[in-house]
Amino acid sequence: MGPHPAVAAIRLAVRRVLTDILDDHGRPPGRPAHEQPPTPLVLVACSGGADSMALASALAFEAPRLGIRAGGVTVDHGLQAGSDLRAAEVVLRLRELGLDPVESVVVTVGRGGGPEAAARDARYAALDAAVERHGAAAVLLGHTRDDQAETVLLGLARGSGIRSLSGMAAVSGAGGRYRRPFLQLDRQTARKACMVQSLPVWDDPHNTDPAYTRSRLRHEGLPALEKALGKGVVEALARTAQLSRDDADALDAWAGRAEAGVRDADGRLECAALYALPPAVRRRVLRRAAIEAGAPAGSLFARHIEEVDRLITGWRGQGDINLPGRVVARRQGGRLVIRQG
Amino acid sequence: MGPHPAVAAIRLAVRRVLTDILDDHGRPPGRPAHEQPPTPLVLVACSGGADSMALASALAFEAPRLGIRAGGVTVDHGLQAGSDLRAAEVVLRLRELGLDPVESVVVTVGRGGGPEAAARDARYAALDAAVERHGAAAVLLGHTRDDQAETVLLGLARGSGIRSLSGMAAVSGAGGRYRRPFLQLDRQTARKACMVQSLPVWDDPHNTDPAYTRSRLRHEGLPALEKALGKGVVEALARTAQLSRDDADALDAWAGRAEAGVRDADGRLECAALYALPPAVRRRVLRRAAIEAGAPAGSLFARHIEEVDRLITGWRGQGDINLPGRVVARRQGGRLVIRQG
Repeated sequence: MGPHPAVAAIRLAVRRVLTDILDDHGRPPGRPAHEQPPTPLVLVACSGGADSMALASALAFEAPRLGIRAGGVTVDHGLQAGSDLRAAEVVLRLRELGLDPVESVVVTVGRGGGPEAAARDARYAALDAAVERHGAAAVLLGHTRDDQAETVLLGLARGSGIRSLSGMAAVSGAGGRYRRPFLQLDRQTARKACMVQSLPVWDDPHNTDPAYTRSRLRHEGLPALEKALGKGVVEALARTAQLSRDDADALDAWAGRAEAGVRDADGRLECAALYALPPAVRRRVLRRAAIEAGAPAGSLFARHIEEVDRLITGWRGQGDINLPGRVVARRQGGRLVIRQG
Repeated sequence: MGPHPAVAAIRLAVRRVLTDILDDHGRPPGRPAHEQPPTPLVLVACSGGADSMALASALAFEAPRLGIRAGGVTVDHGLQAGSDLRAAEVVLRLRELGLDPVESVVVTVGRGGGPEAAARDARYAALDAAVERHGAAAVLLGHTRDDQAETVLLGLARGSGIRSLSGMAAVSGAGGRYRRPFLQLDRQTARKACMVQSLPVWDDPHNTDPAYTRSRLRHEGLPALEKALGKGVVEALARTAQLSRDDADALDAWAGRAEAGVRDADGRLECAALYALPPAVRRRVLRRAAIEAGAPAGSLFARHIEEVDRLITGWRGQGDINLPGRVVARRQGGRLVIRQG
């Protein structure tokens, strides 16, 4: 008798990703171990919650079968009382699963961009450091299809275009170090897999705290949307993420190529050439130019780019357009000048 | 003292669109009437609800000032008891506003694609006929920003990519005959404009009937989403629509150009050339080819195209892929063959 379907599902998802990692690290499968380069190490980032505990269990099971070393990291954000004890407990659980090395890392959460963004920044910095410290090939992250759906809705709320609808990538980070094996798997399957494997899981109180946007979305927004639109909403949102990501990548590449063609000999942007581009490409060229001039990407919104775009498409002698980062856009004799100061 | 802000807002929105229509119909503004081509007629499609009554009132006010004739059409779908009396009442109201010609058109709603789609198809067919009958330059439709937000969410639920996120166009139909002046205006403004002008409005019971997806979305889904994500959700969704539309247009144009480059001398699709395209462009080329081969666009989903795409990106000797409309895709000696049969 094989494993429970939920356990089979999480293992399959992890196996696929580990095989990819082996391919990327030049280990031809099927060759004897002594002919191989040093055994790669794959870490799991584990909070002790159901998603990442399921991920850790599947990694512990699959890694040895593929000649991979499996380790784990848990990040102590220090935001809740007893978070150190919790981290120690997660370390214990990961060791019990047979992972090695396993460590707990304490981080200091700043205040930039709201509490969720600050915690995330601190977490990824710690994970990056762990990768370097251990020479790991990759870190597995337990984000599920449900997390992906929530991320798409959060992006939708920004109204800043399809890049913000593209959610989390299956592969991201420097050298593709972050991998999300569960992005096509639902949260319920991860939870079920923990249950049937008798893995104790921790329910982060933040996940049900209505002070957090994501928590409100999870417990009120998405269920209401499912009630109105039907049960397929989560899957539809996850598919939207993938399609939007591919579309955004293609358009970014187009804008990159187009940019060279709209600059004059001195590298200045020519309004007539910009005008001839499709609006979607032109706006991306303008965005790139603003960022290049020093505007911080995170503060540059669709409405800023629209205003700059009107210097091209709706020219009626407008004055300077002020952009974030003290960047100014102005039209001057058929040229668009975007610079700091 | 000027008009109430809500009335000023609806009039400005209509004035902008009427000016566009005049531009498109070659009437240089400011020339005396006898030097102009025949006075263009603009119709308003009016259900008697707040949005379209506000639209009718603004058209009645603005059209004569721009040398435009204003008329109205109300469509009797025959779906509710007394709909004929209601249509007669709307005709009366539109005449009272000074519109001429005004008519009520009875349509027969079929069953294709669900009750909402069938009613919409019947309605547009009737409006198209009215345009031809009266030689109208355009028909104004009362869709607001809130309608647009709902349409984006409905598209999101299909999970079929950014084209379905692009909502309703400000200009659509043959020759750009349909115009939506209120697409940037919220429903509350239209309702307020009716109130302050003492225009009686009719509340369609369908709009609050939870049997309809859009109604559930309006009264439960969107409010819950606003509660979770903040009040800006409707605006963000409307902006997403515009950005997605431009992006989808640019990618469709790219796919159109790319298609010629991936066909061999006999017009067959070359797998190697397809493989070299960005995924977003390749999938669009495949979709176009499937539709050209006879697959009905409305039944061709993202998952169909993904399966065909795997003949290119994940070739392992798969068999035929069956698509809607008895269209079959298969890989044959480095060529992709998509045809009916």
